[in-house]
Parts: sequence; structure tokens; C-alpha cells
Amino acid sequence: MIPIMPFEARERRIRVAVLGATGIVGQTFVRRLTGHPWFELVAVAASARTVGQRFGDVVGRNAELGDAAELVIQPCEPTSINAPIIFSALRNDVAGDIEQAFARDGRMVITNAGAHRMERDVPLIIPEVNPEHLGLLERQREVRGWAGGIIANGNCAAIIIAMGLAPLHRVFGVEKVIATTFQAVSGAGYPGVPSLDILGNVVPFIGGDEEAKIEREIPRMLGAFHSGEVINADMVVSAQVNRVPVEHGHMACLTIQLSHRVPIDAISGALIGWQAPARVAGLPSSPQAPLMISAANDRPQPRRDCDIGNGMTITIGRVREDRVLDLRMVVCGHNVVRGAAGTAILNAELLVSGRESAQWEESMLV
Amino acid sequence: MIPIMPFEARERRIRVAVLGATGIVGQTFVRRLTGHPWFELVAVAASARTVGQRFGDVVGRNAELGDAAELVIQPCEPTSINAPIIFSALRNDVAGDIEQAFARDGRMVITNAGAHRMERDVPLIIPEVNPEHLGLLERQREVRGWAGGIIANGNCAAIIIAMGLAPLHRVFGVEKVIATTFQAVSGAGYPGVPSLDILGNVVPFIGGDEEAKIEREIPRMLGAFHSGEVINADMVVSAQVNRVPVEHGHMACLTIQLSHRVPIDAISGALIGWQAPARVAGLPSSPQAPLMISAANDRPQPRRDCDIGNGMTITIGRVREDRVLDLRMVVCGHNVVRGAAGTAILNAELLVSGRESAQWEESMLV
Amino acid sequence: MIPIMPFEARERRIRVAVLGATGIVGQTFVRRLTGHPWFELVAVAASARTVGQRFGDVVGRNAELGDAAELVIQPCEPTSINAPIIFSALRNDVAGDIEQAFARDGRMVITNAGAHRMERDVPLIIPEVNPEHLGLLERQREVRGWAGGIIANGNCAAIIIAMGLAPLHRVFGVEKVIATTFQAVSGAGYPGVPSLDILGNVVPFIGGDEEAKIEREIPRMLGAFHSGEVINADMVVSAQVNRVPVEHGHMACLTIQLSHRVPIDAISGALIGWQAPARVAGLPSSPQAPLMISAANDRPQPRRDCDIGNGMTITIGRVREDRVLDLRMVVCGHNVVRGAAGTAILNAELLVSGRESAQWEESMLV
Amino acid sequence: MIPIMPFEARERRIRVAVLGATGIVGQTFVRRLTGHPWFELVAVAASARTVGQRFGDVVGRNAELGDAAELVIQPCEPTSINAPIIFSALRNDVAGDIEQAFARDGRMVITNAGAHRMERDVPLIIPEVNPEHLGLLERQREVRGWAGGIIANGNCAAIIIAMGLAPLHRVFGVEKVIATTFQAVSGAGYPGVPSLDILGNVVPFIGGDEEAKIEREIPRMLGAFHSGEVINADMVVSAQVNRVPVEHGHMACLTIQLSHRVPIDAISGALIGWQAPARVAGLPSSPQAPLMISAANDRPQPRRDCDIGNGMTITIGRVREDRVLDLRMVVCGHNVVRGAAGTAILNAELLVSGRESAQWEESMLV
Repeated sequence: MIPIMPFEARERRIRVAVLGATGIVGQTFVRRLTGHPWFELVAVAASARTVGQRFGDVVGRNAELGDAAELVIQPCEPTSINAPIIFSALRNDVAGDIEQAFARDGRMVITNAGAHRMERDVPLIIPEVNPEHLGLLERQREVRGWAGGIIANGNCAAIIIAMGLAPLHRVFGVEKVIATTFQAVSGAGYPGVPSLDILGNVVPFIGGDEEAKIEREIPRMLGAFHSGEVINADMVVSAQVNRVPVEHGHMACLTIQLSHRVPIDAISGALIGWQAPARVAGLPSSPQAPLMISAANDRPQPRRDCDIGNGMTITIGRVREDRVLDLRMVVCGHNVVRGAAGTAILNAELLVSGRESAQWEESMLV
Repeated sequence: MIPIMPFEARERRIRVAVLGATGIVGQTFVRRLTGHPWFELVAVAASARTVGQRFGDVVGRNAELGDAAELVIQPCEPTSINAPIIFSALRNDVAGDIEQAFARDGRMVITNAGAHRMERDVPLIIPEVNPEHLGLLERQREVRGWAGGIIANGNCAAIIIAMGLAPLHRVFGVEKVIATTFQAVSGAGYPGVPSLDILGNVVPFIGGDEEAKIEREIPRMLGAFHSGEVINADMVVSAQVNRVPVEHGHMACLTIQLSHRVPIDAISGALIGWQAPARVAGLPSSPQAPLMISAANDRPQPRRDCDIGNGMTITIGRVREDRVLDLRMVVCGHNVVRGAAGTAILNAELLVSGRESAQWEESMLV
Repeated sequence: MIPIMPFEARERRIRVAVLGATGIVGQTFVRRLTGHPWFELVAVAASARTVGQRFGDVVGRNAELGDAAELVIQPCEPTSINAPIIFSALRNDVAGDIEQAFARDGRMVITNAGAHRMERDVPLIIPEVNPEHLGLLERQREVRGWAGGIIANGNCAAIIIAMGLAPLHRVFGVEKVIATTFQAVSGAGYPGVPSLDILGNVVPFIGGDEEAKIEREIPRMLGAFHSGEVINADMVVSAQVNRVPVEHGHMACLTIQLSHRVPIDAISGALIGWQAPARVAGLPSSPQAPLMISAANDRPQPRRDCDIGNGMTITIGRVREDRVLDLRMVVCGHNVVRGAAGTAILNAELLVSGRESAQWEESMLV
Repeated sequence: MIPIMPFEARERRIRVAVLGATGIVGQTFVRRLTGHPWFELVAVAASARTVGQRFGDVVGRNAELGDAAELVIQPCEPTSINAPIIFSALRNDVAGDIEQAFARDGRMVITNAGAHRMERDVPLIIPEVNPEHLGLLERQREVRGWAGGIIANGNCAAIIIAMGLAPLHRVFGVEKVIATTFQAVSGAGYPGVPSLDILGNVVPFIGGDEEAKIEREIPRMLGAFHSGEVINADMVVSAQVNRVPVEHGHMACLTIQLSHRVPIDAISGALIGWQAPARVAGLPSSPQAPLMISAANDRPQPRRDCDIGNGMTITIGRVREDRVLDLRMVVCGHNVVRGAAGTAILNAELLVSGRESAQWEESMLV
């Protein structure tokens, strides 16, 4: 039996905490957990430098933090945090050890960090796309011997592109993808991109091996779950990443080859007809439409479209035939929400909704 | 004999004029012709609305206009303009008739407008790339019966991409190109792109059939001149264009398939080793290096690189293997200079340098 | 008796329409009237060019338009529009005649246009600041003989500055104000400011007599209502306006002279303690706090603060003594919401809430 | 006799070095010293972290560095640097001790750092405005006993504002100034302002006591030199500083009170008629016009005007009467050039041109 946690009696909310709460993704976790119907944020944790300070003082005045502003920052240690679900927005270089310590201690770590993403027994989940990959948790528990577990989401650009590809891959088979990205500065965190580098400019490079992440995570997220394993999708992805002077919203121009030529109307039909599985569509953070297909010839646009669906909807436009491969299209989504904290929270909701028989321990509820 | 004009005795300068002088490209023509060693700007012409006004009053205070600010705007008619070389920055919808009237009247029209670009007898020139296409002027004269002629340059993005492809095409043969562009707002003229559309945003669309222009002009500019005709290069180009909040400088991410696999070092070698033909390299507007290959992993960048070589150098970076086609690279150049007025002036210099035997009529010199 | 309209039985909503609905302010009216508890948007009107078209088709895809997208655009004529309350976002040059036609026809015109702002019998209202100026409607009716009436709000920058000054003027008397503004591009409408003018730039000028509007409207809005007339506040305002590359949110740096020196703590106290009159605080569009005083040394900031209070809160910061006049402070608010459509809707709510005895005609309700 | 250095025989150039050469101001020093007719850059120095590295490798590819790219970075110590003139672009917190060490060692330190600016015996120079303040060097030598000396320039915004005030102060007497600034991000150095703070935003604050610097340095730069001392101008300056999303160019809106009311034509006349002293106008870095007065109603603008005069010209516009104080105007200049490296180099030229009798030691020349 895997250690995922049932959630039936909705009268009580589940205690959750955020590691790395002071960064951009961490703050977004906090804001989106405020008033969450299932989760109650009981602790925030961050680096030693800020431990013991009031959270609101560290991140600055922000009307939307609500009661969370009053939390005192804790160290990133299991003994300091009493919550069964741990959201991690830790930096990659420190995430590995800390997340494992929490998993070992019986917590379910829902992480946005890259540390464990490509490990064979760690599910890399977009709930609308590959919820069945959660099944990897059984193997994870066997292999690692953890009482808890780790569930990851992908790189922000990889998630946004994968969501646009998912309907096509399921129906027609995607074989090749050339992706050129236009990535917002919030993707680099804070202080992140110096204004002198990006004001009125474009930079055709993003550090941290961004292109390789996109190229390897997409086939994994679009892979099949068989016999307790994820079999990567048989596709080749090529990514050229670029930073643009946009606050939020990653956009990507995609050129795609399918397993066979398909009329463009069938492509549009597959995109428009695609829906999240019912068990996902009903989750609290699930947007009304995971994909919105625009018929306008000048959409999507990051500034105008990234907040659709409370930041959880991917907008797709300019779907048309290509002269070199089969088809072209442009996808866009909110990098901090759909590409990070929003998808992670949806992952947690997916996990929690999965078991109807069991009961939370009293201690795990508020 | 073709009607191109010799230029030997450099003691006298050739009279030139600019049609459509009040727009962004027109003003750039004027600024770059100020102090030109071979050309003397004797007239500016523009739409009826501005005829008779002082040029400097219409375009506003601009220290760089020099004496040209004092010119009185003329109508776009051959009888009003006494100059053998006519630069055209007219809008496409009016350029056709006006340019033909000047050509019929014996003038050499060097145009940035799109009206005649794809006509079989109109040379579409980048001097460093396809100077031999000038030979089309003979056919043009036969076909049209004009005393003068029309020489065009390509779309701004098409020129910049074609220059990056030229060395590869000559050496290895380019078969397929997928181009995703990042285009500056100055490409849309003035008033052009509303700030509400582009501040902190990206728009995956440019009007005026921009993608088709790129897709059809590049094979033509890279075509061969045989038996008095241009045979388009046998390549397929796919373009996805985007507007970005950059003032000047078009950038494009290219994915390229060659006629055969080539080691990446050979690719770089071909780019680095490429040079303009000697007769072009010596022209007044020719940059020291038409191509600059950057080894930095975050170049080219439009704001930082588009002015290199007085706006005439194309910067290329991130040259590397691709996982879907053969190779990837990023090209960048100044859209108003290399992509428009600068290349047009270089075209005129190429034309003028072509005949060493003949003499300008006295009336054509200053 | 003045023609303002009572509103008691909240079971029925009042029919309203928007003139000039296709512009930025017009669209904002429409979005903020969608789901309004008191008002039902039954018609949109605009220039002849768009009459008869579906509103959603003219303004483009916009998820937030809701049912209003289905409205067919009407001409700006009383006979075409069956609603007692008319919101006007018309351009100044056409607003005058049209608004008077509606007022003559018995409608209450709540206008954001400048046409009637400085007329002696037209109330220029910020509900939290000078609701008593509504009393001018009596005089307006006498003078004009209209069955309806016109209520205006001020220039966008003038409103934002006036709200910051109001608490100080009431308590200490403001005598002199030097205002340097930082105004967002949305203030110029669409297409408005060309991107080539404002990307990476500041322009120390705004057309349409912006500075004079600020200088004359503020003393009027802060004036006293006595014996049926508004007596302008006895203060001198000097404005230097500037356009900055910001999407929404006007900011102004103010240097202020009071009637006498006051300790800075008393200044802050007056700002923090200021509240809207109770009858205004309870209106549907009234923000929780009309003014938010920031203690941070780097606030307010337009992008981060202009949406506070659903765009209706003014943020004030950097309150401190000055070396030339008495004190300095920085104010910031959303120019399209608090500076235009939001305040106009609040004006309509104020009007409607004013009479508890009377009844709307059946025909005026939905 | 003061230790300033004569410069007669122009056949040889004077050896100079730059401390803090890797920052934005440091790099600007290097670029503007390349090809300088009087100075030869023989050394660059920077923090211990970069000592021993090739300058071009540390600051990145930059075509304009020329031969300086090959210099090996030295420690900031007199024994490492053989040059009589030392330009300092050091950070304020380290500049004090290092600059004094060089002065003690007999070098003339021309500093852009703030460490010594307000010391009574350190000249704070804008050559066109107060060249006579150089006379303080005599006192400096007496007081400090240094063989060399220190000459400073002011804060970048203070210089630009002071140049606009100088003609008015000389002719009419400036008594009060309220300055609201719009400052470019390059003023914060690199990495400086995070893009997330400033994209599409304005921040009404700049660290490092920017406002106090402006308020105290302007009266000093506009002060009179009497009996070996600088007597600060008797004026009160109030500054409200703001960061705007502009790359280069500080702009300031000024409201000014003179010693008596003056017709606005006389104001304009004083600005237009103002000229640099003849000895300054002839220096190599002196612009043709230190001030350019624009009649356009929308100028100056930082992006369009800051490069005028090779970055050394201040543009002034919107000169008009004020309703609170006497007059208003807007000034703009290049913060890194006129506000830093350019003025410092002009200071060095002023120094060097000051003595015609003496001779440089052979060792000091190239």
C-alpha cells in the first residue's frame, strides 16, 4: 500500500506547510493556499537567514498574504513542521536532501524543485495530463523505504508546452517538436534578471540547463504508465529558450511532427475537444478549461492571457499547417502558477482525492 | 546594354533623392545619405499632405538630419525631382505606380518597398550575398522597355535571416529552415504598434503577410543567377513571426536542415570564414564584417548587438547541433538599417560601382 | 425637487447603458457593471461606424465581458436606449451634445468625459470626498430645465491627486501644490501612445490640456458646497505631467504647502484616520479603504499597487517634510478605474442611494 | 604651488589608469579613453576577485573596448599602477582609503565616487560651471600634505540638474528648487535594479541617500570660490527621486524660485545664451553645446536626447512660468556620461590644460 493520503471528511482541513516560502514561487504557494477549501497553511519555512522572523516582514507588505503574514519562519526540518503535506519551492541545490528528510519522516512532499524530477520512481505530474503516473509512488516506497513520498511537477516551460502537446500526442502521436520559447522574467526568481539585461531586449539563453529540462521532461510527462513504470513518450524535443521583457507568462512557438499527416481541422478538433479526466476536473484548483483555443490571429499573448482560469489555463493559438514539419502552434501559460505553484497544489489535491476509504489521522487535520 | 550607371570620377557626387522620406525608413535613408562620399541628397519627397513643407518641420527636431532639414518636400513625381538615383521608402500600396513612373523616366529606383520584390525581372539584392542578381536588370530593360530600372531589397526579417543562411547554403546546401522571429517595433513604422499592445508583452503575429514574405523571399535571395534568370534556391522556409517590446533589432531563432550532416565545427568554420566579395567589401556602406559570430552563450541580443558595424553587421550566436533537424542558431540585425535603408544604399553603391568605363552625365552630378 | 433617482426596493435592478463603450474606459464600464448588484447593463452605444455590430466582435475576445459581448451596439441617441442611467465614456469632442440630449430626455448622465466638467452647475464628484456637491443638481435643473441631469467625474490624474489631498485640506487647509505626474499609457486610450515613443523612455508632455485640467479641477473637487453653489478651494495647483512606460496606474509626486506648519506625525495621522462618509462607505463599489498609507520607503508603485481595493484604493507613501514647502508625498491609483469608470459607477451608486422615499418607475427596472 | 599638472607638448600622451574598471562607469571610462587625444590608458584595476584576469574576459565581449580588452586587471594599489592620472569609479565604501593612498603617492585622482565629495578641500567640479573651484587643490595640499590630490564630480542627477540651474543662478539667483527625478536603471550599476521591480513600473525611491546627495551637492557646485574656499550657493533644494524603466538618461522636472520675478523670455534667453568658459569649450571632451534648449513641447526625453553631444549635452525643455514658484523646466542628460565618466574625463582635461609653463616628467608620458 502506498502512503498517499485519503481525504473524505471535508469538515476538517489538512495541515500543509511551504518550504522555501520567501521566493516568488513560495509566495505564490502561500497566496494560493490562503482560503483553500481543503488545506490549511500552518507553517512556512525558509533559509537559516530568515528563520525566526515574521513572514510578512521578510517578504514585505502584501495585502494578499492574509493571516500567513503572521507566521514565524521555521527551519526546513521535519521536527519543526507539523504537517503531513509539504510544498517545496526550494532551490534545486538544497532541495534534494531536505525533501528526502521530509519523505523519510512520512510526509508527502509536493515539490516544484528540480532535484528529483528525472528519477525513475518520482512521479512528474500534470494532473490533467498524466494523473496515472501517481502510481509510481508504490515503487518509490518499495525502492526508498520512505514512510512518505515525493511528487514533482516539471519545469515551468515544460509543463506549458506539454499541456499543449498532450491532446495531439494522445490522438495522433507526436514524434518531433521544435520549441522556441519566450520566457517571462519571473521565471528567474528574485532578484533574478537584471533590468539592464532585459529592458528593451531579448536574451537567447536561460541558465540552469533550461533547454535540456524541456527536452527531457516533456517526453516523460507525456509517457505511459505501464506495469508500475513510466515509459517515456517516443518523441524528440528540441528547445531554444529566450528571455523576454515580460513580467509573467511563458509563451512558446511550436513546430510539430505527428506520426502521420492529419488535416488541420482534426488538429483543432482534438485540441478543442480535450478535457481533463473527471476526477481532476472537479478538484478545487482545476480551471474551468485547462486549454483555451483562440481563433484570433494574434493570440496567445502572455500579458493578456496568462491569468485566464486563475492562471491555470493554457491558451493556444495560431494552429496551422507547417511547411517543414506537420503543424505549428503557439502556447502560453502562467509560469509561476500553471508552471509551478498552481500545478503543485493541483498535484496535492489529486493525491488527497485519491483514497476514499482511509482517514486522516486527527493530528493531521486542523 | 543595361542602364546601370558607371561611376569613375569620384570628384563629383551623384544626385540622389528619397521618396517617402518622412517615415522611419525614409528618415534613416536621409540620415545615412548625409555626408555620403558618393551621393548627394538633393531632394526629399513624400505624400501630398506634406508637400511644400520644410522637411525638418515635418519630421521634428533631429540633430542628425543636418542640411537635409532645410529641404522642401517635393511631390513623388519624376518632373519634380532631378536625380538619377531614387531611393524609395514608399508604402507598398502606393510604391508600385510611382516607382514605375520613375523607372520609365530613366531613373534607377532603389526600393525598400515590397511592390516589385517578387517580380521575375526585379533583382532582390543583398550585395554581400547575391550581387550577380543585378544582371536581371538587362532582362528588366528588355521586358519593360524602361530607360531606368528598379532594384529591390527584401523584407527586413528576410534579409537578416538570409545573411545568416548564405554561408551555409553556399557550402553545404540548406534544405529546410524553421524560423521563429523576435521583431522590433520600429519594423511597424510610426505610429505603428500601440504601446498598450506591446509593453510587457509579446504578440505572435505581424500584419502585412510578414510570414509569407520571409518564406518566399529567402529562397529567391539565395537563388542562383543563370542565363539571365534567378533560379530560386531549392529550400523550404517556415516562419513564425512575433513582435517583442524592443525598439530596434530583429532576432530569429533558426532550425536548419542541410543537404547532408556536417560536423558543427565545419558549420562554425563556414560562418566565420565567410566574406563579402571584394567588389562589395570596398563599398562605402560595407561593414568591416557582414557577419559576426559570437561565442558567448547569451548572444546575439537585439539592443546590444544591432548597432554593430554601423547597423550593417549581422550577429550570429548559439550555433549548435539540433535534435530534430541538423543545426540551430540565432541571428540578429538592425531591421531599419541592414533590413532596409542601409542595404538599399549598399545596393546603390553596388550599382554605381559596376561600370568603370562610362561617365555620368554632367547633369547627374552635383 | 431634483431629478435624482431613489432606490429602495433592491429586488429589481436599474437599467443602465454605456455610451462610448468600445474604448478603454467604455470597456471598463462594461466589465465593472457585469454582475453589479444594483445595475443591469441593457445597452452599449458607440460611434456610427460600429452601430449594429455585436459588441464582443468589435472589442475582441475578452472573457470578462460576459453576456455584454452579445449586445448589439446602438447609436448614441436617447430614442435608441431605454435606461434611466447613462454612463458616458465618450470623447470630449462629441460628448457635449450627446450628453445634453440624454439629460434633456430625462436621463441621469454619469460622465467621465470632460465636456461639462467645469460648468458651474455640473457636480464634479468623488463620492468619498465631496458627495455634497451632488446638491448642484438642483441648480442644474433650474438653469437648464432638463428632466434629467449630468454628473461628472474629474480627469484621471486630478481624481487621484485630489483624494490624497482631501484629508489634508479638510484638517489643515492646503494652499499650494506642486504635482509631477507619472502617467500610464492606458490614460491615452487605444491606439493611444505609439510604442516607439514610450518604450524605454519618458515623455514630459500629455496632450489635451492635461496640466490645466489638473490645475483647475482639484480646487473645484476640494471646494465647499454653500447655498447651492460650489466655492472652489482657495489653493494653487501646479502640474508637470509625464507619460511613462507603465500599462495602468498614475503616480504623482506632490509637494504641498498647508495653511500652517504641522508636525509630520499629524499629517500621517490625518491621512490614516481619514474615512469615507458612512453613506459612501456602504456603496457596492466602495473599497474597504479609499486610502492606504504605506510605511515602506519604496511605495507606492503603479504596477504593484494600482489594483488594490479592486482598483478603487489610492496608495500614498513617502510622506515626509519638505525643505521648500511644508511636506512631500507620493500618491498612486488606477487611472482607468479610480480615475474614470470606477469612480463614475460609484457616483451613480451615490446618486441612486440618495433618495429612500421615492420609487423607480417600473419601466426603469429590469 | 599646487600639484596640478601642466600639459604643453601634445606630442606625447599622458598615462592614465581606471580604478573600478569593471563596473558600468568604469567601462565607460575605458571606452571614452580609447583614442583620447591627450590620455593613454595604461592600466585598469578592480577588486581582488578579478585581479590577474584579462579585462576583456571579465567584462565580456565588447567591440568598443579596443586594445583595453587585452589589459590585465591590476590591484587598486599605487605600486601596481604607473600613471600620474587615476580615474576612480570605485564603490563609495572602498573609494575613500584607496583614493587617498594614490593621492598621497603623488597621483591626481579624478573620482566619480562619493567618498570625498562633500569635504571642504575637495573640488566638486563641472568644468563648464565651476572650473574655478579647482583652486581648492591648493588648500587640499596644505591641509592634507599630499603630493597628489583628489578632484571629484557630483552625483549623476545632481550634475544634470546643476547644469540646468547654472545659467539661471549666475544671472538671476536661484533661491529654491523642487526637483522630481526620473532616473535610468544604469544609474544603479550592474546587476542593479531587478527587472521584476521596474518592468512596466516606477519606483519612488533610490537607495544610497540619493535625495540628500542631490540636495547638498547642487548648492556646493553652484557655490562661489572666494579666498581659497567654496561658499555654498544660498539656495534650498528639495529632491524626490524615482527610478523609471529607462536604460540611460536621467530626467528631472524642476520648479524654481529666483531671487526676483523675471519674464520667461529672459529665462530662456539666459539659458540659450549661456556658454562654457573659453578654456573649457576647447577641451577634447567638451560638447559643442553644453546646454541645448528645446522648443518642442514634448522634450527632453531620455532615450532620444541623452546621447546628444556624445552624451555630454544637457537638454532642457518646457521652460515656462509656474503658478506656485517662479518657473518650471525639465532637464535631461546621460547619467553615465555627463553624470559620471564623461564629466570626470572633462575634469581631467581641465586640470591638465591648466598649466602651460611646466612640463610632465618623461616618466608620466607614454
